[in-house]
Amino acid sequence: MKKCVMISDSFKGSLSSSDICAIARESVGKFFPGCEVVTLPVADGGEGTVDCFLEACGGEAVKVSGVSGPYGEKIDAVYARLDKTTAVVEMAATAGLPMVGDKKDPCKTTTYGVGELVRHAVEQGAKHIILGLGGSATNDGGCGCAAALGVKFTDKDGKEFVPVGGTLDQIAGIDVTAARELLKDVELTAMCDIDNPMYGERGAAYIFGPQKGADDEMVKFLDGQLRAMDAAIIKCLDLHVADLPGAGAAGAFGAGCVAFLGAKLKSGIETVLDTVEFDRRMEGADVVFTGEGRIDSQSVHGKVIDGISRRTTKAGVPLVAVVGDVRDDAYEAYDIGVTAIFSINRLAIPFSEARPRSRQDYIRTFEDVLRLIKAVEGFRA
Amino acid sequence: MKKCVMISDSFKGSLSSSDICAIARESVGKFFPGCEVVTLPVADGGEGTVDCFLEACGGEAVKVSGVSGPYGEKIDAVYARLDKTTAVVEMAATAGLPMVGDKKDPCKTTTYGVGELVRHAVEQGAKHIILGLGGSATNDGGCGCAAALGVKFTDKDGKEFVPVGGTLDQIAGIDVTAARELLKDVELTAMCDIDNPMYGERGAAYIFGPQKGADDEMVKFLDGQLRAMDAAIIKCLDLHVADLPGAGAAGAFGAGCVAFLGAKLKSGIETVLDTVEFDRRMEGADVVFTGEGRIDSQSVHGKVIDGISRRTTKAGVPLVAVVGDVRDDAYEAYDIGVTAIFSINRLAIPFSEARPRSRQDYIRTFEDVLRLIKAVEGFRA
Repeated sequence: MKKCVMISDSFKGSLSSSDICAIARESVGKFFPGCEVVTLPVADGGEGTVDCFLEACGGEAVKVSGVSGPYGEKIDAVYARLDKTTAVVEMAATAGLPMVGDKKDPCKTTTYGVGELVRHAVEQGAKHIILGLGGSATNDGGCGCAAALGVKFTDKDGKEFVPVGGTLDQIAGIDVTAARELLKDVELTAMCDIDNPMYGERGAAYIFGPQKGADDEMVKFLDGQLRAMDAAIIKCLDLHVADLPGAGAAGAFGAGCVAFLGAKLKSGIETVLDTVEFDRRMEGADVVFTGEGRIDSQSVHGKVIDGISRRTTKAGVPLVAVVGDVRDDAYEAYDIGVTAIFSINRLAIPFSEARPRSRQDYIRTFEDVLRLIKAVEGFRA
Repeated sequence: MKKCVMISDSFKGSLSSSDICAIARESVGKFFPGCEVVTLPVADGGEGTVDCFLEACGGEAVKVSGVSGPYGEKIDAVYARLDKTTAVVEMAATAGLPMVGDKKDPCKTTTYGVGELVRHAVEQGAKHIILGLGGSATNDGGCGCAAALGVKFTDKDGKEFVPVGGTLDQIAGIDVTAARELLKDVELTAMCDIDNPMYGERGAAYIFGPQKGADDEMVKFLDGQLRAMDAAIIKCLDLHVADLPGAGAAGAFGAGCVAFLGAKLKSGIETVLDTVEFDRRMEGADVVFTGEGRIDSQSVHGKVIDGISRRTTKAGVPLVAVVGDVRDDAYEAYDIGVTAIFSINRLAIPFSEARPRSRQDYIRTFEDVLRLIKAVEGFRA
């Protein structure tokens, strides 16, 4: 083995994608000294997305002072400049759920700071901005972010305001002219790994409201606010975004950044693969390693392994998955181009006991795969 | 992969060694059409030993009518003639625990029929006889078998008798002349996978008596009987066999066949490897597959994988283990020459749930190993 690539999803709650990359470098180095190991941590849009891209692509962290936090308080926040024209902004940097602590109130929190980070990147010359959606404390439909980028929201009296989760029904007018001018040469990609619509029982308020602090009554209220925002978008902009897959992501930020800013919604893995130039980085690799906490029929439809296997198959590079559980319906994976699947479960024990062992079990399983590869390479001798 | 060998221990209670051989032939055929697959089921001395050797070596099953069952009743029994000079007799064929049903009484059962099978084989020209110890209903110290082969046991009045588990203390004289004459050109190998001594708290009565129907009181009685037999062996033959590893196997049959018949005690795996001519059968193999229900530090000391790894290491052939559980102390296995270990556990579930899935999980794991081998072979292309 002269070159290999590790690009694995996280094992939720036990191993981050970046942890797995570190293991890969160490273990491959042990069995194949001199082997080139390309490690590409996989971002999902949520917290850590900026770090993942910096680790995978290099570039620099850009710190911006005095941007708005979830309640408008002034904070320092960081985004990534991967190269002269590409930047990565994660919502969680200014509107993240951990930032509000116990003070959760999705009626009042704002994404204004996200827009300030984007504006900073644009003013520094970014032509392609990746917006990581996820882990937010907000339900403002991205209005705050849009306002920071020049979108004017007015109420029934024509008075300009910055809508939050609880005031979306006051939007009577939307003027996107200035924002579209600011972003006219900029490609905005909003990455998210969920496909929920803007509202309704699978929408932002019902599914994600509770974890942001909404009780049953507030969930209903927030859902109504999002419906009102959608009505305003249809009326003012003649756009229908509510049912786009991912419109409901991050407090309906998905819907807002499409409607107000002309962003494109894209899955995390496709965004990562394109941004890290996966095809080029994989060139000459003997094998690509991937994985996730659980491989099942969903893995075969639009998730990390699916996205990667399309490309490895095209390139003719074997794709070996090291995973947590292998569900009984995972076997389509072979049809989409996964070469082989190995579970890190090494003892017949329930997950509660297996979870604290994840790291050692991952290392041991991965190293057994490496040992086998080394031995089989020896066949040619 | 042009040639491979499968030689795996059973997964107790879920997959026999022979089942695993069948899986190997089918799965290897699927991924490597044309690949030579040498499948060698591993006998452990107990029930099924004759079938294992016939499957591994070819030869014929020899049926003998009118031999003695556990209670002296006349039965038909089978042993294996592997070639002109090699035969395999398993105790379980005439003295097996399942043969007595509910009528368990290790004070009364006899191994006489085992000796009749051995005599038949000798009379047919066998020069090497493998005696499989295990799964017996008896505790007669092999006296029945010995008597059938010409050993004369006499009581204090000089009267000849065939001792059983409850009459061992009546042995006053032992004359092995006729048996030694009968067996003078015959090599007797008694194979067993346990190392228990003849008597005492790790001896035949205490450890195996209860499963043969002995209650606490009878266990003590049987243990005393074995001590008396040992005293008679020392007195009459001047031999000390009680502490040989395996002396306590199969109701102290181990001790008896060494003392009365000059047999050698040998581990199951070494007997198998020698008898199937493992080194020759492995020649030219790209890989040897092995396994067992659980790999742990014991596996590294004298069990199936240990025996095999000594030979694969010497021959420079990779040894891949497909196992049930991989215990945390299994990692010395790499030091003794195991190339890589793969667990068939594919879900984090307890053994009670995993066990009924063993077959499918084995197949899937083994096939993933094959898929990986196939892909890595492709590296050279």
